[in-house]
Amino acid sequence: MPRRGHRNGEQDSQAEKTTEKERRRRTEQHKERIMTKEEIVSAHGEYNLQSWSKQKGLSPIAVRNGDGLYFWDMDGKRYSDMSSQLVNLNLGHGNRAIIDAIKEQAEKYCYISPGYASESRSQLAKDLVSFLPDTFGKIFFTNGGADANENAVKIARMYTGRHKIFSRYRSYHGSTFGAGNLTGEPRRYPLEPGIPGFVKFFDPYLYRDGLDETDQEKASKQYLARLREQIIYEGPDSVAAIVIETVTGSNGVIIPPSGYLPGLRALCDEFGILLICDEVMAGFGRTGAMFAFENWGIKPDLVTFAKGVTCGYVQLGGVAVSSKIAAHFDDAVLSCGLTYSGHPLACAAGVACVRYYGEHGILENAKERGKTLSSLLQNIQTAHPGVGDVRSIGLFAAVELVKDKKTREPLVPYGKDPEGIMKAILRRLAAKGFMTYSHENMIIVAPPLIITDDQLVEELAKLDEALTEAGL
Amino acid sequence: MPRRGHRNGEQDSQAEKTTEKERRRRTEQHKERIMTKEEIVSAHGEYNLQSWSKQKGLSPIAVRNGDGLYFWDMDGKRYSDMSSQLVNLNLGHGNRAIIDAIKEQAEKYCYISPGYASESRSQLAKDLVSFLPDTFGKIFFTNGGADANENAVKIARMYTGRHKIFSRYRSYHGSTFGAGNLTGEPRRYPLEPGIPGFVKFFDPYLYRDGLDETDQEKASKQYLARLREQIIYEGPDSVAAIVIETVTGSNGVIIPPSGYLPGLRALCDEFGILLICDEVMAGFGRTGAMFAFENWGIKPDLVTFAKGVTCGYVQLGGVAVSSKIAAHFDDAVLSCGLTYSGHPLACAAGVACVRYYGEHGILENAKERGKTLSSLLQNIQTAHPGVGDVRSIGLFAAVELVKDKKTREPLVPYGKDPEGIMKAILRRLAAKGFMTYSHENMIIVAPPLIITDDQLVEELAKLDEALTEAGL
Repeated sequence: MPRRGHRNGEQDSQAEKTTEKERRRRTEQHKERIMTKEEIVSAHGEYNLQSWSKQKGLSPIAVRNGDGLYFWDMDGKRYSDMSSQLVNLNLGHGNRAIIDAIKEQAEKYCYISPGYASESRSQLAKDLVSFLPDTFGKIFFTNGGADANENAVKIARMYTGRHKIFSRYRSYHGSTFGAGNLTGEPRRYPLEPGIPGFVKFFDPYLYRDGLDETDQEKASKQYLARLREQIIYEGPDSVAAIVIETVTGSNGVIIPPSGYLPGLRALCDEFGILLICDEVMAGFGRTGAMFAFENWGIKPDLVTFAKGVTCGYVQLGGVAVSSKIAAHFDDAVLSCGLTYSGHPLACAAGVACVRYYGEHGILENAKERGKTLSSLLQNIQTAHPGVGDVRSIGLFAAVELVKDKKTREPLVPYGKDPEGIMKAILRRLAAKGFMTYSHENMIIVAPPLIITDDQLVEELAKLDEALTEAGL
Repeated sequence: MPRRGHRNGEQDSQAEKTTEKERRRRTEQHKERIMTKEEIVSAHGEYNLQSWSKQKGLSPIAVRNGDGLYFWDMDGKRYSDMSSQLVNLNLGHGNRAIIDAIKEQAEKYCYISPGYASESRSQLAKDLVSFLPDTFGKIFFTNGGADANENAVKIARMYTGRHKIFSRYRSYHGSTFGAGNLTGEPRRYPLEPGIPGFVKFFDPYLYRDGLDETDQEKASKQYLARLREQIIYEGPDSVAAIVIETVTGSNGVIIPPSGYLPGLRALCDEFGILLICDEVMAGFGRTGAMFAFENWGIKPDLVTFAKGVTCGYVQLGGVAVSSKIAAHFDDAVLSCGLTYSGHPLACAAGVACVRYYGEHGILENAKERGKTLSSLLQNIQTAHPGVGDVRSIGLFAAVELVKDKKTREPLVPYGKDPEGIMKAILRRLAAKGFMTYSHENMIIVAPPLIITDDQLVEELAKLDEALTEAGL
């Protein structure tokens, strides 16, 4: 029996009526369980808010299933996934090992809270630490890349007792407030006025900065000298961490020049600043190494990851921290937490996924096929006056479109595409079954790491054709 | 073939060595696949960072499986889940309908990006809108409650063009920067210096504020008058939204007094402020209604949800917005997004889960069993001098422990428990198999909504005993 008026039983007058009305409405609407293609598309537009879009005039493809590089719509039309969706399906669609691991864990239990020990969580944490440099100690699990970066910043502040965080203009780290304030590109603007103490510097973007690309060590020195100056002006003792995408992803696959990362590491060491590598896109084989920073032989203090850790089959992200940072939290409270930290179903998918990379030679394939991709892209650059630059490492590439190769003027101005030029190119590609996305004046090419040379040749021919048709 | 030195092929000198060493280490460590109990517990401590904890001295229970109210450790010991883990397992452990839905979707496809139409995503968005008041239009999906609140704030700012956000001191909305700045309790501190424009006010907490609990309308008027004054002093035209947990959750199941929510709705309407109800804990049947706000007959402008939408079987959260707000984004870009928005596997779990509530009379059970719980808690309050207050609505309850019933002095001071008094009580409960958690001087009681009267009687007897043993 309820004890007081505002507890069980007695509520404000309107409540009973609402409940009865709602119940009727619900019963009517939930009879059907299988939707036609038209119903799926129509409900998508009518009830669902789609990321980063005006909602009017969307006409999404309804997907039926996928296998490897390919997926099919509900009419049976095949598409080639040349961006691995959002650069997360590193093992492609329909990976049997991950699916089986999900089904097996679902039969044990799907969820137990982070305070309990769970086999898949323990196993994945252990596996991930074994993949990382020997300086690494522990993993804090999240649901994706944004909250991985949020928690990396929190951990860096707690560990150092400093509050400033450096990150780069040409970057995307997520769109929650913390990750979005790390982000430098326009998707940050809706989060302003921003969080105090978040400072931006520029990426080493030799092509756009007009630097001599044949002398990378020199360029690196210039970038690092300017960054060192900025740290000094901000006050080194107040800087907790420098956060970088090891290879800048969505903002155009900007690959650090030789000497840059070792120099950045040295700069961090000089001032007691933590180096956080965001490997959300670049990690898990994308560049041909398990983690992109391995390509330059450096060891960050924290690594954030998501996407490729499960290929997105179940959502998962996390922060890996050095043993030194981990030890700090032996006696200090780790003031981080979320209901789904180390979600058992996600971790089971993760164990199957990360082991697959090693057991099926995926890193080697990414590296070898990366050479083919690089070569094909160079041919495209040579052949097309509108292709200013092509950049790739492993199976992570961007094609940068320009109005003029000499002036390097981007095909569309920064932050806008009023005439929908880039969208029109994507539509041409989609018509050929080549699915990807663009950012600014760049087309991202980042297929699943299981792609073959034949498939690369077939798909890149479509890109070649589409650029020709677009008059580039 | 790679085109430039810093692309494929040529990397800094240390890289090759690292790669070879790592590969050897990995191969050795990944041979075993099944862990013993000891290995699971040991790896949990050695490789995993646990939420909200000092990492030293943790001795987590290794969980084997679960069924309904119960779960078992690896020695076969049974535990009663009297907090539904983190108030998310509303349908308890091992729900067959959700497990089957996950397995079925896994066989179709686990993931497709938010720009494609997906049956489970479309279906769940449609179902959720049908559960909400008829003023509601669309759903933006996230991975959990924190990013649901992050995006609700962004949407409110975009829609209103205002930047200030009101939320309450006694609240928990998540621990990423945006959600953590909404949060009023100490878990907010590591996120400071905070985001400009986040303003706090006090919850209507009659017991602790010493107000006359028999005249709730009067108390509501006092709280609302003070809030109205605060809005005027902050400048009403700059306030985008007021964010509340409809029923404050972790901070002590603080139930709004009669008249409070309708008054808050009127205040929002007066100043053009959006009302955001955080239903992450209180939603999906916890209070005996699908959403807690139904108990007071009000209609918020935005509703955030997570937990009970899938019971956490797969991580899912989201923001429901009114048709009016949804229409705004027909022609304005919704500047929100995440890789896993509307994750197909999570949405499939969601469809099975939310339909289960209606088809199996779960809301009715929560309401009816809630009466039993309320009555049992009152007996405990009467019997124990250390129980200052018990509050419950549906199957959502807190037991507030005090040093003295008359002075109402909390059993432990705010934000601290230096002698581990609350932890000791939880240990006593755990020894009896009654698993829950505490916050400040309060014990949370929030079992799965499928619990029976017999089970409630059996479990509450354990609480009664534990309090007696603790000398309360």
